[in-house]
Amino acid sequence: YQLWGGRFCEQPHEALQDLNISLPYDARLYADDLDGSKAYAEALMRAGHLNAAECDKLVKNLELIRYDWVERLIKFEASDEDVHTVNERLLVQLTGDLGQRLHTGRSRNDQVVTDMKLWLRKAIRETLGRLRQLIEAIVRQAEAHLGILMPGYTHLQRAQPVQFSHWLLSHAFALREDCQRLTELRDRSNVLPLGSGALAGNPLGIDRVWLAERLGFAGVTGNSMHAVGDRDFVVDFIYCCSMVSLHLSRLAEDLIIYSTKEFDFIKIADSFSSGSSLMPQKRNPDGLELIRGISGLITSNLTGIMMTIKGTPSTYNKDLQFDKQYCFQAYDKLTQSLNIAVGVVETMQVQRHQMESALSSDMLATDWAYYLVRKGVPFRQAHHHIGCVVALAEQRGVDITEVPLGELQQICSDFGADIASVADYGHNVQQYDAIGGTSTASIVEQLRLLKNLIKELRQES
Amino acid sequence: YQLWGGRFCEQPHEALQDLNISLPYDARLYADDLDGSKAYAEALMRAGHLNAAECDKLVKNLELIRYDWVERLIKFEASDEDVHTVNERLLVQLTGDLGQRLHTGRSRNDQVVTDMKLWLRKAIRETLGRLRQLIEAIVRQAEAHLGILMPGYTHLQRAQPVQFSHWLLSHAFALREDCQRLTELRDRSNVLPLGSGALAGNPLGIDRVWLAERLGFAGVTGNSMHAVGDRDFVVDFIYCCSMVSLHLSRLAEDLIIYSTKEFDFIKIADSFSSGSSLMPQKRNPDGLELIRGISGLITSNLTGIMMTIKGTPSTYNKDLQFDKQYCFQAYDKLTQSLNIAVGVVETMQVQRHQMESALSSDMLATDWAYYLVRKGVPFRQAHHHIGCVVALAEQRGVDITEVPLGELQQICSDFGADIASVADYGHNVQQYDAIGGTSTASIVEQLRLLKNLIKELRQES
Amino acid sequence: YQLWGGRFCEQPHEALQDLNISLPYDARLYADDLDGSKAYAEALMRAGHLNAAECDKLVKNLELIRYDWVERLIKFEASDEDVHTVNERLLVQLTGDLGQRLHTGRSRNDQVVTDMKLWLRKAIRETLGRLRQLIEAIVRQAEAHLGILMPGYTHLQRAQPVQFSHWLLSHAFALREDCQRLTELRDRSNVLPLGSGALAGNPLGIDRVWLAERLGFAGVTGNSMHAVGDRDFVVDFIYCCSMVSLHLSRLAEDLIIYSTKEFDFIKIADSFSSGSSLMPQKRNPDGLELIRGISGLITSNLTGIMMTIKGTPSTYNKDLQFDKQYCFQAYDKLTQSLNIAVGVVETMQVQRHQMESALSSDMLATDWAYYLVRKGVPFRQAHHHIGCVVALAEQRGVDITEVPLGELQQICSDFGADIASVADYGHNVQQYDAIGGTSTASIVEQLRLLKNLIKELRQES
Amino acid sequence: YQLWGGRFCEQPHEALQDLNISLPYDARLYADDLDGSKAYAEALMRAGHLNAAECDKLVKNLELIRYDWVERLIKFEASDEDVHTVNERLLVQLTGDLGQRLHTGRSRNDQVVTDMKLWLRKAIRETLGRLRQLIEAIVRQAEAHLGILMPGYTHLQRAQPVQFSHWLLSHAFALREDCQRLTELRDRSNVLPLGSGALAGNPLGIDRVWLAERLGFAGVTGNSMHAVGDRDFVVDFIYCCSMVSLHLSRLAEDLIIYSTKEFDFIKIADSFSSGSSLMPQKRNPDGLELIRGISGLITSNLTGIMMTIKGTPSTYNKDLQFDKQYCFQAYDKLTQSLNIAVGVVETMQVQRHQMESALSSDMLATDWAYYLVRKGVPFRQAHHHIGCVVALAEQRGVDITEVPLGELQQICSDFGADIASVADYGHNVQQYDAIGGTSTASIVEQLRLLKNLIKELRQES
Repeated sequence: YQLWGGRFCEQPHEALQDLNISLPYDARLYADDLDGSKAYAEALMRAGHLNAAECDKLVKNLELIRYDWVERLIKFEASDEDVHTVNERLLVQLTGDLGQRLHTGRSRNDQVVTDMKLWLRKAIRETLGRLRQLIEAIVRQAEAHLGILMPGYTHLQRAQPVQFSHWLLSHAFALREDCQRLTELRDRSNVLPLGSGALAGNPLGIDRVWLAERLGFAGVTGNSMHAVGDRDFVVDFIYCCSMVSLHLSRLAEDLIIYSTKEFDFIKIADSFSSGSSLMPQKRNPDGLELIRGISGLITSNLTGIMMTIKGTPSTYNKDLQFDKQYCFQAYDKLTQSLNIAVGVVETMQVQRHQMESALSSDMLATDWAYYLVRKGVPFRQAHHHIGCVVALAEQRGVDITEVPLGELQQICSDFGADIASVADYGHNVQQYDAIGGTSTASIVEQLRLLKNLIKELRQES
Repeated sequence: YQLWGGRFCEQPHEALQDLNISLPYDARLYADDLDGSKAYAEALMRAGHLNAAECDKLVKNLELIRYDWVERLIKFEASDEDVHTVNERLLVQLTGDLGQRLHTGRSRNDQVVTDMKLWLRKAIRETLGRLRQLIEAIVRQAEAHLGILMPGYTHLQRAQPVQFSHWLLSHAFALREDCQRLTELRDRSNVLPLGSGALAGNPLGIDRVWLAERLGFAGVTGNSMHAVGDRDFVVDFIYCCSMVSLHLSRLAEDLIIYSTKEFDFIKIADSFSSGSSLMPQKRNPDGLELIRGISGLITSNLTGIMMTIKGTPSTYNKDLQFDKQYCFQAYDKLTQSLNIAVGVVETMQVQRHQMESALSSDMLATDWAYYLVRKGVPFRQAHHHIGCVVALAEQRGVDITEVPLGELQQICSDFGADIASVADYGHNVQQYDAIGGTSTASIVEQLRLLKNLIKELRQES
Repeated sequence: YQLWGGRFCEQPHEALQDLNISLPYDARLYADDLDGSKAYAEALMRAGHLNAAECDKLVKNLELIRYDWVERLIKFEASDEDVHTVNERLLVQLTGDLGQRLHTGRSRNDQVVTDMKLWLRKAIRETLGRLRQLIEAIVRQAEAHLGILMPGYTHLQRAQPVQFSHWLLSHAFALREDCQRLTELRDRSNVLPLGSGALAGNPLGIDRVWLAERLGFAGVTGNSMHAVGDRDFVVDFIYCCSMVSLHLSRLAEDLIIYSTKEFDFIKIADSFSSGSSLMPQKRNPDGLELIRGISGLITSNLTGIMMTIKGTPSTYNKDLQFDKQYCFQAYDKLTQSLNIAVGVVETMQVQRHQMESALSSDMLATDWAYYLVRKGVPFRQAHHHIGCVVALAEQRGVDITEVPLGELQQICSDFGADIASVADYGHNVQQYDAIGGTSTASIVEQLRLLKNLIKELRQES
Repeated sequence: YQLWGGRFCEQPHEALQDLNISLPYDARLYADDLDGSKAYAEALMRAGHLNAAECDKLVKNLELIRYDWVERLIKFEASDEDVHTVNERLLVQLTGDLGQRLHTGRSRNDQVVTDMKLWLRKAIRETLGRLRQLIEAIVRQAEAHLGILMPGYTHLQRAQPVQFSHWLLSHAFALREDCQRLTELRDRSNVLPLGSGALAGNPLGIDRVWLAERLGFAGVTGNSMHAVGDRDFVVDFIYCCSMVSLHLSRLAEDLIIYSTKEFDFIKIADSFSSGSSLMPQKRNPDGLELIRGISGLITSNLTGIMMTIKGTPSTYNKDLQFDKQYCFQAYDKLTQSLNIAVGVVETMQVQRHQMESALSSDMLATDWAYYLVRKGVPFRQAHHHIGCVVALAEQRGVDITEVPLGELQQICSDFGADIASVADYGHNVQQYDAIGGTSTASIVEQLRLLKNLIKELRQES
């Protein structure tokens, strides 16, 4: 069964078939394809091209086909180019001539974009659900470990003391924007292409607005030539997936480093680690490395689809068929990556003692500078003075807190005995109480924001 | 003048300086940097770290520095690492100790993200302005040439007759979504990072919400460790630029092909063409080829920044410094590309005669199939019958309209003499009157939508 | 059966397994893995860790396992992480304790790189074979159609007359370099990593040089820590594949344009075309569009693997596991793409009449300039004069050959009546007789070069 | 002065000029352009198109122009499209009509490819020189610190003890292959395109083989249509640069991690570090982070040029003009990156004590397994037993060397008192004496290989 061929003298060459047949990729669209077809049958009826009984028969048989897909009863044939062909073939087998009327005024060009948009809607919902789970896992761990201090790093060098929860939540804030991006995409792309035909539109009185409502779209596409050649919503989705994967790669990098023996801040659960075939003692953070590495794979789908689209003439060209391989790979891999991330965060063990032991007196330097500022020293000078103290201490091989007051005063006369009071990491941390800072009050506010987000995401799904 | 160095024994090596100094790239942020600093000075005053006179003096001198930038009076010094250093150095030269107080509680980490966001706001506005110009040019040409028919292509093969205006507007609909993407980004990213410090937040009573309002932000970032290491808004912007450039590459490809001697649908103006150093007769569509080619350059900035960010630890790492090179290159190149596109579209000459001559009877095939459908033939069979007619005509080397009725009836008995009436391209085109189709009514509606968009964009800018 | 686990308390989590298990990807390495293991067993014997009978038993049983793979008799188990695990599990099932000795001193780290290199050697040979087929198809068509003229294009605008064969062979010259690249890679990467262990090397007296010879390598890797973390040979291969695919994308673009109705220089065979589900007359060059589009997919594997590798610590990290997905996808897709290209070129129909009809007098312009040069006019002036003639003719709507001599002489007094003789496209073409030019003599030389290449490639395979 | 324009009625539009003028990019090719022109003048003379005096005059004046470039005396004009235009304009200013004869039979299409190939030859030589310097720096440090032990890592988890020199040299072996890649490219691309004209070849009796020898090429390109549209050698070079940058990114990642306070294996010199504007104590490895980050920028040029080339029609299209931006950016950035790498490696301080303190008894596990193997236990069982010992020790919070013999024997009865002897890291390391292993003998051999390479590279430059 072929949707075309009357004007052809030869069958497709095997080499062409190998690459042309998209069924292995687009079979997963079967339900969306049937949904679109049911609605289209009704639209044909409303436009007077089918009577009610015919329409009813088509719809019922499309449901039978869905059942067979669900039950894995479909047998593919060698000539099945794609999911659209399979579904039409089955319908014609069940309904004869009637089934041959369904495609009236429709083209695979507008059909497949519609299918993809229906699929995408679900994929976005699922992805938002997984993002929510990861944010929840982060929030739970952050809440459970409130009050634990650790070195905060910039350039991977110790910078200032922060709370463990503050660090962990920083990753959730990146994910929060991912949710926003996906939500905006969902709304932006929610316009129906069906009724655009091959490129020129529909001449059969099909009511596209009715079709859109029927299929849950907020509107219809505005230009048929654009609609059939447009894959921007797929590119956008792969972009969103890539951004999530980048965020996960940074989370993974942090955790890989924090779970080295040298840092030892985090213990990754056995269930997310693997061993070595040669070295019996190894416990490797494979889950995290896979997350980090896969960001390249997911992002490569973005590069790929953009390169595939670049410079193609407008409307539909066969090049666009690869959209599905890119899209499904990005989605599937991101799903796996998110699932691992949820598991790792949920099961990781926080090593409070090691984190707090890693706080060192050089991390007080900024607060020491503020100490001088409060004594009236301009900040830039205060910064310089403390830098000199650090250098001095380093030369001596001592902590800055061990430099005698007299020598401090030689560097800057505003040092007083009260400098000794700027030595409590916990106390200092609480001073960072502007919105977004590392004080407990600020972290509690962050938790509130994220819990609201979780609630919203839960309501939507 | 250096913002750091008290603890260092050696000067930076020349090889490091070569790459480290970002001034050639970030100098264009000078105004944003000054705006941020003025607001920060006021915030320091409101928090009690400066008195009113001091604040006033800082603000006034920052304005003096802006004047010098505008008048190109700034002299750079070898030690000027970046625009922040230059501005602080100048301020200290003008105000002494007072200038050294400005950086209290601030870090270049939160400062540069703030600068970039201020810059981005303007870049988005400018880009929307250029997109508007291009859409306007398209709309003008589409409106001026309403009613002209041309072959519509899929797979670059003649498909169905469409209106020239319908084809041209299809490109505007891609650009419309670009505007939407940019507008959403503008709103999504419009939260202030200033007050995040180096990573831990601000401990000096700075009112971030006030700062945000002062600088025109809708809110503040939620987590300081996230804020200083976040470049997602830059990646998002480069992504938006890449998508525009992809759309332009497809428009360019269409126009390059349409302006070949063989198609000859469009004449590109001399002012957007170049000649050959060897072949005197050449008139090459250089402008369009540059647009097509540059999409690779713009998109490569997206790939690059994603690869640069991938796998970096959280918060700030120096790797992030490259964000500016990627961002400014994408913006500058897109600006050039859009400017050319506007010019090409405005000045191109539409070759009505050549377009309409290119309509051939095989393009009636779909309408012939609908003819049979109206006689009661199921569409899939009608499709097959017409395919056979096409094959027959091709074998004979004649038009399908030249196949005698008798032979048509041998293929399908439903053919009647009235098939001759399905031969008027203009008439057929008008039947495609569903929303988004190629009928005049539908195109007029498309023009209305786009004019509304233009009006909105104009009000915003 | 697991190659590790003694020190673990929990089983791997399902989410980890989903992504971690590489068997679906690396199963195709089974034969290479067995080859490597056979050689390693012998090396263990030569180093005194196995006796001859033990070694013999291992080798024989490894052969039995190979048989089962070939006959598809292998049953996978849920715990089968990868092909190495499967092969060791089967070996232990067949030989008990003895099989458990095979991995002595070996790690999957050096094992998998060895497997990949063995696989790559075959993949390169196969790819060279397919490139040879394509070059052969091109050479055959070029030879068969020697003497046919067509417009040569630059910027897709008519430039100078060339021979069809010259144009077609230009694509073969790009492919010739692809062969060179692959051959160099084959030689460059032909060093054995086995014996590098997990990272530190081999402490058991294994003779790596002997192993290398045994497995057909020209040498051994020089540093074990480098060897286990090195995937450059995979990146190189994907790069080579990407370059081939770029070349095919340009060939495809040419052919897509040449097979439009408007150019009509080439007819793509039915067997490499597809139709439309809606438009009965369509005959689309799907094969070529797939080739063009897939270049994005193949190249995306390059971007992906580079991004995955970027910034990973040295030696082995799990991120490297994705090398196989990238590599096999690039190889498989290139294989399909090359197969189609061979078929398209072999079956395409050359439309001599249409090509020669497309030659137009403006394409004589360069030869007219040379005419003036021969009369003593400096080239740059000659170029300008002919440009004026072209402009004049265009204004008049006539051919340059129709401009009266008197008017030519007003533009440049060196024009004589003999200008009429510079009007024979065929004659002009023959003047381009420098090496690489479009004269018949030069093309015959090109054919000779390519036939030599074909011979060499045939001897190697 | 324009190289074309006779047939044009309008001047180029400003928007087109902005993007079209490539002078800012290609000016650096001035010397190559002059070299090519000198040779071409001689070729014209040899073919009888110039007499000896004319040729001599052209050559001398081209040398005068070179002098002005070197002395920065060239004044650009608004109409200077590219370096070819500038050079011809200057020549015509100096020599009048004679200069207008130089371009006879030449096109910018073959001219610019020739220039690029001449430039590339030097760029490869320079890059090989910098690679040599880096390998030398590595070799020096490795030799100076022979005998220092450190933990070898896989998955960033402690794996087996290795020598510091072994680890450091592992990076040199990646660079060695980079040298090989560049050398092969230099040879592969060393064929002259000049004489290909715009696309059809040269009809004026130019002796291309002589030209090739004159310009130091090993041969000539085989097909003129291929030659003018071929940028593969540029793509190849950018690929080579990207691979180097990937290697540097891994070296940088190692060093960034090793120079954290927690590892503390390496101290990066002050001269390759920077401080913080806020935190006085910071000493950040900026040089290394820039190296790591820039790998994204360099690689993005590869992605970009491939995307730009993809799907362009054959021969020359203006899209190809961007090759220079990609190529020069990749080269310049790699140069900066290599310079920093050389400096960092030369000046870094090796913290022997910290490295050796980080060796922990779990890293003996593999050698313990070999111990059991020597007692006759099959390796896979030995691996399992030691895994159990590790788990037991971990539960107890003790070293594996602290588990009493009795308990070891409960796990495996082959344990004996002599297990205590497998505890000397230094002794164990020496056993890894297969080629490429971490024993001193093996490292000395590695040093020898690399010194040979250095010698070869030095002779070539």
